Amino acid sequence: MRILALTGGVGGAKLALGLASIRSADEVAFLVNTGDDFEHYGLHVSPDVDTLLYTLAGLNNQELGWGREGESWNCLKTLDTLGGESWFQLGDRDLALHLVRTKLLKESMTLTEVIGHVATQLGIEHKIFPMSNEPISTRVNTVHGELEFQRYFVEQKCEPVVTGFRFDGIEKAQMVPDLTILSFDCVIICPSNPFVSVDPILAVPGMRDYLHSLHCPVVAVSPIIDGKAIKGPAAKMLSELNLPVTSYQIAKHYQGLVNGIIIDKLDSTNQADIKNLGLRVAVEQTIMRTLEDRKVLAQSAIDFAMSL
Amino acid sequence: MRILALTGGVGGAKLALGLASIRSADEVAFLVNTGDDFEHYGLHVSPDVDTLLYTLAGLNNQELGWGREGESWNCLKTLDTLGGESWFQLGDRDLALHLVRTKLLKESMTLTEVIGHVATQLGIEHKIFPMSNEPISTRVNTVHGELEFQRYFVEQKCEPVVTGFRFDGIEKAQMVPDLTILSFDCVIICPSNPFVSVDPILAVPGMRDYLHSLHCPVVAVSPIIDGKAIKGPAAKMLSELNLPVTSYQIAKHYQGLVNGIIIDKLDSTNQADIKNLGLRVAVEQTIMRTLEDRKVLAQSAIDFAMSL
Repeated sequence: MRILALTGGVGGAKLALGLASIRSADEVAFLVNTGDDFEHYGLHVSPDVDTLLYTLAGLNNQELGWGREGESWNCLKTLDTLGGESWFQLGDRDLALHLVRTKLLKESMTLTEVIGHVATQLGIEHKIFPMSNEPISTRVNTVHGELEFQRYFVEQKCEPVVTGFRFDGIEKAQMVPDLTILSFDCVIICPSNPFVSVDPILAVPGMRDYLHSLHCPVVAVSPIIDGKAIKGPAAKMLSELNLPVTSYQIAKHYQGLVNGIIIDKLDSTNQADIKNLGLRVAVEQTIMRTLEDRKVLAQSAIDFAMSL
Repeated sequence: MRILALTGGVGGAKLALGLASIRSADEVAFLVNTGDDFEHYGLHVSPDVDTLLYTLAGLNNQELGWGREGESWNCLKTLDTLGGESWFQLGDRDLALHLVRTKLLKESMTLTEVIGHVATQLGIEHKIFPMSNEPISTRVNTVHGELEFQRYFVEQKCEPVVTGFRFDGIEKAQMVPDLTILSFDCVIICPSNPFVSVDPILAVPGMRDYLHSLHCPVVAVSPIIDGKAIKGPAAKMLSELNLPVTSYQIAKHYQGLVNGIIIDKLDSTNQADIKNLGLRVAVEQTIMRTLEDRKVLAQSAIDFAMSL
């Protein structure tokens, strides 16, 4: 049974780790948002890919909730003293990954190949695909104008009120060839931000057609519980876009793509409303505090998908 | 009295610090070799400029004899685990300077402006000029073929036998305009490697004419003492090029440019031979262990120049 999991950063990577922990490299592959990628000091930074790499390698910083474990910040501190930009938290160890990626891309490796190379070095066996090898840049439209995603997310701490999104470069982007030759038995959309983590993946030309062509169950795990996001700005974005901050809205967002949605057991969304959209609903504990939580939700998502 | 000091890396920077310690920013300026500059992981690294910046800012690593004080190596160690190249010692703090330089150059600052910006941030008041704003790359011809300077110097630890040198890009390089409008009352060539630190500076089109046009005394401090270099591969290079490893040879190397040479008090070079080249000779302690040694030699070099 082959599973494709779509994921963004920290929230999605938790479920991804659950999947990787209960399914072998032959059984599950990951498709990751690269709309957050940006160039910083001439280096190619790939935040969601890195989060997944660190998480699957067991190198994620559990204290911070992002970045690499055992991190030091001597370069960043020195940047400050040199009048450099220090709004983006470049850890000393994390920097090594940016340096290697930048170098290999300059040497004409594709992003897919670079990720594969790094994954191998980190002992990760599961295949990780970027949504595209071409550069795509998520731009957040706000009442103060358009912002590059990391400027919105990190520098401005998601404060500007959001009015919409744009994926710069998406028209010229292509799906990763290595992915399109594969088929899967189910697709799981991890509990990532629908607007800035999953939508960029779905916006790659051909991606929705490819997912449909798999003729397999597609399930999403809602990142919203009763008006709140477990992590990140999903709830704030829904609210600013004048949309209901509910799992029903998440289901509606993915309508036409997914067959079912998993909502949290604490979520009071009216399941009948979701079913009226033509989707099935499963109720699980979607808050993942422990590795066991991640594995249990991963198994539930697989079971739910295969029941459809 | 205005002094221009030509310098390469560690050895030259010692005398540069002496000069900066006894003469104000109005009285001494530095002209630095950038033939060692290279691109590493997409970053513009400028080893001799950085050595001078760190030395003048009091941030040089006295324990290592190169690099920045209080350095950590977490990025470099991580590069190793990611299968990256780790032959060049990138310190975490040092990296910040490479990041800032690379960024500002991409934003169309000249190298002169970048150095000025960083110097200001580090509290350095003395003016530091690169030999050119254009990229020039010193190549070492060896019996095993041509090597980029840092590959020869760092990666191969100066082991390959040298047959000659080439300054790639020198034809298209120009002197720094901000320098050419200045005049000086004396020029001091610091005890840097004549082949790979000073010759690249002198090879910039117009540089020798500019120095002649100053119509002022030019003195060099010999980096050779009785068949040995105080630091670096100068002696090894002379020997491999079948040249005498003597201060006489250094004097001959600079003949036509300098009016006098300072040799070490322990050097047994026949001074009459140097005088026969038409140069004056001063004998001083050129080994600089303490800051006081640096200041004393700086004062001696100035006094010697002004006596010519």
